[in-house]
Amino acid sequence: MINKLVEKIKQTKAPIVVGLDPMLSYVPEHITKKAYAEYGETLKGAAEAIWLYNRELIDHIHDLIPAVKPQIAMYEQFGVEGLITFQKTVDYCHEKNLIVIGDVKRGDIGSTSAAYATAHLGKVQVGAKKIPAFNEDFATVNPYLGSDGITPFLDVCKEEKKGLFILVKTSNPSSGEFQDQMIGEKHLYEMVGERVAEWGSELMGDSYSYVGAVVGATYPEQGKLLRKVMPKSFILVPGYGAQGGKGEDLVHFFDEDGLGAIVNSSRGIITAYKNEAYASYGAEHFGEAARAAVLDMIADINGALERR
Amino acid sequence: MINKLVEKIKQTKAPIVVGLDPMLSYVPEHITKKAYAEYGETLKGAAEAIWLYNRELIDHIHDLIPAVKPQIAMYEQFGVEGLITFQKTVDYCHEKNLIVIGDVKRGDIGSTSAAYATAHLGKVQVGAKKIPAFNEDFATVNPYLGSDGITPFLDVCKEEKKGLFILVKTSNPSSGEFQDQMIGEKHLYEMVGERVAEWGSELMGDSYSYVGAVVGATYPEQGKLLRKVMPKSFILVPGYGAQGGKGEDLVHFFDEDGLGAIVNSSRGIITAYKNEAYASYGAEHFGEAARAAVLDMIADINGALERR
Repeated sequence: MINKLVEKIKQTKAPIVVGLDPMLSYVPEHITKKAYAEYGETLKGAAEAIWLYNRELIDHIHDLIPAVKPQIAMYEQFGVEGLITFQKTVDYCHEKNLIVIGDVKRGDIGSTSAAYATAHLGKVQVGAKKIPAFNEDFATVNPYLGSDGITPFLDVCKEEKKGLFILVKTSNPSSGEFQDQMIGEKHLYEMVGERVAEWGSELMGDSYSYVGAVVGATYPEQGKLLRKVMPKSFILVPGYGAQGGKGEDLVHFFDEDGLGAIVNSSRGIITAYKNEAYASYGAEHFGEAARAAVLDMIADINGALERR
Repeated sequence: MINKLVEKIKQTKAPIVVGLDPMLSYVPEHITKKAYAEYGETLKGAAEAIWLYNRELIDHIHDLIPAVKPQIAMYEQFGVEGLITFQKTVDYCHEKNLIVIGDVKRGDIGSTSAAYATAHLGKVQVGAKKIPAFNEDFATVNPYLGSDGITPFLDVCKEEKKGLFILVKTSNPSSGEFQDQMIGEKHLYEMVGERVAEWGSELMGDSYSYVGAVVGATYPEQGKLLRKVMPKSFILVPGYGAQGGKGEDLVHFFDEDGLGAIVNSSRGIITAYKNEAYASYGAEHFGEAARAAVLDMIADINGALERR
């Protein structure tokens, strides 16, 4: 799957991923109205609104990008109904030949991590059958529990040729509280990065490992360092746009050949129609606004990569 | 909710929680047969088998214990169908007046943690309505992202009078890889424990905080230390039984009055019928076997507390 991701990035010339992290407040009123008219102001109505919103977004951007990253929390808040929309979104993205990075940030003790790995990347045994559940292509994973919480994910990735992005240095303001602590001469995030490189060394694709890392766009210096610590790990970079990261901050996350990283934007794309720059599209045409924002983001990042 | 938990522990004289972490391989054949006959070897068939298993377990033990702790990963591996069973299990436990600790180990950046907090402990706004989703009473939370990943959970707990157990020192063999690292004079888990005490100080119940901690039974020395670092935090102690913890290892997790900790057992209870000690019940009577194992566990822990 890491080979497919690299291939699709080359093909689209877009080292970006769009975060499908819908809040109800992002969804234009004409869509929520329609969904509530059918199902009422219920969890099912909310989930339907989000599904209609996602589908139109995907229809407008799928040909420009290699991958999407649905954030499962945004669906989970609507309970089972929300997760039905999550599943429909994953499946629809696959129909459109998009790679799906499940932003699930799971992680637990061994036997439980095995269940999460099965849930998101694998197949579960039911009687004589093996059946996929949510069936994403990559999943994000939290490393706090150490390697026996990671190994079950590695096993499933090996079997299914799928991949991980392990949290190393997250994009949020307080990520340093624990991640930046010094352990001897090293920060904790550096130590985690070293383990990511190690875990990944046994799961190599053609040029990158199946085991990638999450490093926030908001921490470019750390990105520069971690690029060297994990030379074979693809870096998933959240925090572009709404969280404050810009194209020029990101060049050090990439290798010389412009590969090795994939930058996520969520709100900057999916709520582009609310942004002054794209407001002329209007709420009715939020899909076109998102498309324009994707094109601008690709140009920003490729421009920064060319200028370096 | 922490007051209710303390009250129910006093009332049942059982500082224990049963982990409802069903694997399909735990479910007796007469139940899987019935479920597959109705829904086939499908995710729905598997989810139905687990629901029937859970319901019978709960029926046999609900009067003995204050709380249950369903591990959501075990449901998530069956996709949406599994999560329908998770929801039914939470609701059924509430009908039986059990406190439900959602073992979800979520944690993300601020806005996403807010969605997880809503999903598991809060209510989501849909139009003019506020609707609960999974609606557990407590949730377990991963601290790796720092305080802005925790604050949204605290906000929801304040509003809903619900509680958290934050991962401090987990029960698994490799938990030390990052958690035991020395930061200056302190282990990382100790530093996290200090923050748990701090986060909890503003959310006090009558005698304990709404913000508790997870500390594995398999690490009694660390438990002793952390009991002092977080004097007002209830400690959720996994790792009893199948993972190797025994009653006598656990006494230091408790305060002088026998409160302050709640010990989880999962496999030791729910698969008791497979254990030599309870095998005479037979698979048909797995509920009775679980009940006997609960009674033995209560006696083991209370005995150890009396002997200290």
